[in-house]
Order: sequence, then structure tokens, then C-alpha cells
Amino acid sequence: MTSPKTIAVVGCGTVGASWAALFLAHGLDVRATDPKPEAEAYLRSFAQKAMAQLRDLGCAGEGQLHFTTDLAEVLQGADFVQENAPENEDLKRRLLAEIDGRLPPEVIVAGSTSSLLRSRLVQDCRHKGRHITAHPFNPPHLIPLVEIVGEDTAVVERAVAFYRSIGRRPVVLNREMPGHIANRLSSALWREAVYLVEQGVASVADIDAAITHGPGLRWAAVGPHMAYHLGGGEGGIRHYLEHLGPSQVRRWASLGSPSFDDATRAALIEGVLEEAGGRSIAELEAERDALLQAIVRIRREPG
Amino acid sequence: MTSPKTIAVVGCGTVGASWAALFLAHGLDVRATDPKPEAEAYLRSFAQKAMAQLRDLGCAGEGQLHFTTDLAEVLQGADFVQENAPENEDLKRRLLAEIDGRLPPEVIVAGSTSSLLRSRLVQDCRHKGRHITAHPFNPPHLIPLVEIVGEDTAVVERAVAFYRSIGRRPVVLNREMPGHIANRLSSALWREAVYLVEQGVASVADIDAAITHGPGLRWAAVGPHMAYHLGGGEGGIRHYLEHLGPSQVRRWASLGSPSFDDATRAALIEGVLEEAGGRSIAELEAERDALLQAIVRIRREPG
Repeated sequence: MTSPKTIAVVGCGTVGASWAALFLAHGLDVRATDPKPEAEAYLRSFAQKAMAQLRDLGCAGEGQLHFTTDLAEVLQGADFVQENAPENEDLKRRLLAEIDGRLPPEVIVAGSTSSLLRSRLVQDCRHKGRHITAHPFNPPHLIPLVEIVGEDTAVVERAVAFYRSIGRRPVVLNREMPGHIANRLSSALWREAVYLVEQGVASVADIDAAITHGPGLRWAAVGPHMAYHLGGGEGGIRHYLEHLGPSQVRRWASLGSPSFDDATRAALIEGVLEEAGGRSIAELEAERDALLQAIVRIRREPG
Repeated sequence: MTSPKTIAVVGCGTVGASWAALFLAHGLDVRATDPKPEAEAYLRSFAQKAMAQLRDLGCAGEGQLHFTTDLAEVLQGADFVQENAPENEDLKRRLLAEIDGRLPPEVIVAGSTSSLLRSRLVQDCRHKGRHITAHPFNPPHLIPLVEIVGEDTAVVERAVAFYRSIGRRPVVLNREMPGHIANRLSSALWREAVYLVEQGVASVADIDAAITHGPGLRWAAVGPHMAYHLGGGEGGIRHYLEHLGPSQVRRWASLGSPSFDDATRAALIEGVLEEAGGRSIAELEAERDALLQAIVRIRREPG
């Protein structure tokens, strides 16, 4: 089975456009579709900017980009599908069934869903095994993680090889889970961050700074489990669990369960706007992307 | 009030040794003490290695280092104290009272405690206002965050100015909280990471990779609150809370509450050792530090 050369990108919002840029920058041809005709302008403008960032990271390919609002047309000749429709179960379920009926069964159909369960989305498909979830992390063209859920091992292996070939870091889940891994962990972190705002412990900006100048730097280098292995000294995780496991369990019991009541919502909005300090979303994204590019470059270097 | 020039480092384990290296590399003199005589050899060897890392980051100072097991001697002439005794409330309480009695009241005494409450530790001190918590994040000479808790605003302001002058990023808490900010957020993240291991969703190594190749990269650039601001598109955090707030609350309700039962402990130990792949703690720390140095260098660059 040769590696895919022509990718159908179905749904061209932020996620779809970012995938398209990544594929194009690796020299793959992209056939993109979106029911909204104005999606084409957004896609081309986003792809141009994102491909410039990717060139800086050494991805200098230039695939062909073809856009059409016609799904049937976009699937013609596609040997891999990346689906990025809105997070609506009924809509995705109908869409996947239609894609499934139009493509030979050996073509992999990967869905970018962040919150829906693969098992529910593929219910109306004849060739369920070729459908996988392949969830990227925003912004997908810069962040290497792709979380993969599937039922056919051979399909999952082919998808892993494909994503690796375009510089991604696939992580295969043993079973599906709402929010996969990364969004659950992000959500767990944010819950406590919102609790600290709710409790008035520090400003939104200072809580964010406590991450970006603290553990956030470390999580770009070592994951949470490995961090506690190193926190155990010479004895590693075994020593940590024996000696500090009970205090960790007590800490867990003290973590908060905030709600988005009016006061907390107001504090979050006011605090984030204060942190933004007048910078627009586009300016903040550009700053984030510049930092991300530099950090991703470090993580790509061998050793 | 001039900036401190001679720092007493009380307690020379990993944290104390790392602080000492940071002070020395900024040209400050360090008077270090530890009840264990063998702490001196560890301190000097750690400081040598850490100061080489700091030179790479542009901190080329070389303060004088004096070690003694005698607390009274180490406090002579000190104009700032960084205390790093073991995390034992009674021990720290007695130690701080002794330090408090031996120093003029204008000298700030900063404690590195990660889990104890400042209000309880200073109970036997006469000059409570000059005592602050100043909690660094491991490894303290590389990670800029210092979490500060105090009761005297002027003292807190002087401490903030001091830590800024040695390249730290102080975050001042409005009120004390067990685990401050960063360790609570780390703990919240790890709880869900342990849950995913307990539930068999993915391997320890893959869960760690989902962070270091995913949100971990982003948290080195933007904090959790700002991440959801950018996740809200043009409408930012306000739009996010309106449209996705309820789904976030549902996600929170689905997060796990794992325990360290035998099976989970065994899975964590086995999984971390598999991830380590035979690398020793020292080797893993060296790899982490090399990545951290590179990432910290990016974050220090202006713009």
C-alpha cells in the first residue's frame, strides 16, 4: 500500500485549513471542500500564512490545492480523507456515511472530532474499519500531536505511518474516550485554574504566567508522569508513590470544582482582557505561533 | 533599601543547591548551611554544573560561596535568606523562629515550601511581616517562576524586585493556598493522567507524549486561560464561555478520580520505566535540562 498522495480535506474552518496547509507543505495534493463558497478565500489566505511558517520549519513542499463546494467532486481520486465538519453528531454521521458510500473501501477516512465518539459517528457506514478518529491539537500545522482511535489495527498502522511521514507524533488510544487524552488533560488543568480565579487567589494573568514561566516550560520537555519520576529523586516514581503518593491524594481531594456562575464568568472575561492588554485575537495568535514555531524547532532537532 | 548582595541559603538539598547556583551566577555572595556536613560536596558539585547551564543562558556572574554547618555563622552579614529545609512543619517553624531571632527585622526571610502554609510556619516569629513564602519550581535555576505569599506589602514588593533582578518571574498570590498555584495545577493535570492509565486508555509513555508534543508545547507559550480565549475565535473568551462553557462543565464532570491502588501503582511504575527505556534519573534530568535551557532561552528573548 503506497502512502497517500492526494488528500481530500472536508470542512475548511480553522482545523481544516490548518490540515490543508500541512499537507500542501509536505508536497501532497489537497482537494478541499466546504459547503460555504466563501470558505475558499479563507482557506487560501490561511494556507499561505501557515505554509510560510512551515517553510521556516523546513517543510518546503508545494502541493496542488483544488477547492470546490461539491463533495462528490472532491472525493474523486482522493486516497486519504481528513474530515473537519462542525462538532455536530448528526451532521458528521450523515457526512461520513456519504463519504463511505463514495470511496473504495481501502481509502482511510480520518475525522478530526475533538469531542464526539468514533463508534457513534460511523454507525451508518458500511466500511466501518477504514474510519478512524485522528484529532489534531490547535494549531494543527504547528503542534505535532495527532490522537488516533480506530478498530482495524492495519488501518490504524497505515494512518500512523502516514502522519509520521508528515512530521506528526501520532498517539494511539487503546479505546475511545470523550475528549481523547489532550483535551481531557487541558480541561483538568483549566478546571483548577478557573477555581483559583473563583477563589481570588491570583489574577488570570498571573495564573497564566505561573504556567508559561513554570510547569508549562517543563511540560514542553517532559510529560506529567515523567515529571513525577524525576520528582522522586534517585528512587524515581516508585519512591515518589511510596513517600509522596498519600500527600498527592490529599492534594487531589483539595482541588476545586468551580462553576461558571456570573461572578466567575465576569472575572474570567475581565481578567483575560486585562492579560490581552488590547492585543487582538490575531495579534495574540501571531505571538503564540512565533513562540510555538521556535519551540517546535527545538523539539524537532535530533537528540 | 539597596538590593541584597549576600544571601543566606539555609538547607542545601536539590532546591537549596539550585537557588545557590542561581544567586552565584548573578554575582551574589552565598553563605550556605546544612546540618549535614556532606551537603557541602553535593552543593559544590551541583552548583558547578548548574552555573555552567546558567552561563549558557548569559548569567556569567561568580559570587563567593561559603559553606558551614553552623546556622548562626551563616546568618552573619546576610541581607536576604532563602530557606529550604525539609517539608516538615514543626522543623520549619522552629527554624524560622531561630532565624527570626538572629537577624535584624529588615532582612527578608523567604521560604521555599511547596506544600506548607506560611501563616502556620511563622507563628513563633516576632517579626512575622518580613517572612514570605517564595516557592520556586524545579529545577529552580532554570524555571523562572517564583510564587510569593506574604502579609507586608512593602516586603512583598522588595522581594518581587529582588527576584526580578535575578531573572525570575515572581507571581504574587492574593492569599495563601496549599500547593500555591503551579503545584495545584500540576496535580490536577496528573490526576487525570493517572486516571487515563487506570482506565487503560493509553500507555504512560503515550500519555506523556500527548502532552510534550501537544498542549505542553502550547503551555510554554500561552497559559490555560489565554488558550481558551484563543479557542473562542474572534469572540474570544466571552464567546467561548457562552457557546462552549456548558460543554466544558460536562467535560469536567466526566474527569476521573483515580486512586493509587496496587494495580494503578504497578501500571504507573512499569509504564514510566518503559518510557525511561533504561535511562537513569541523571540521564533523564540532563535531557530535560537541555530542552529546558533551549526553551528558556526562547522565552527570554525580547518580543
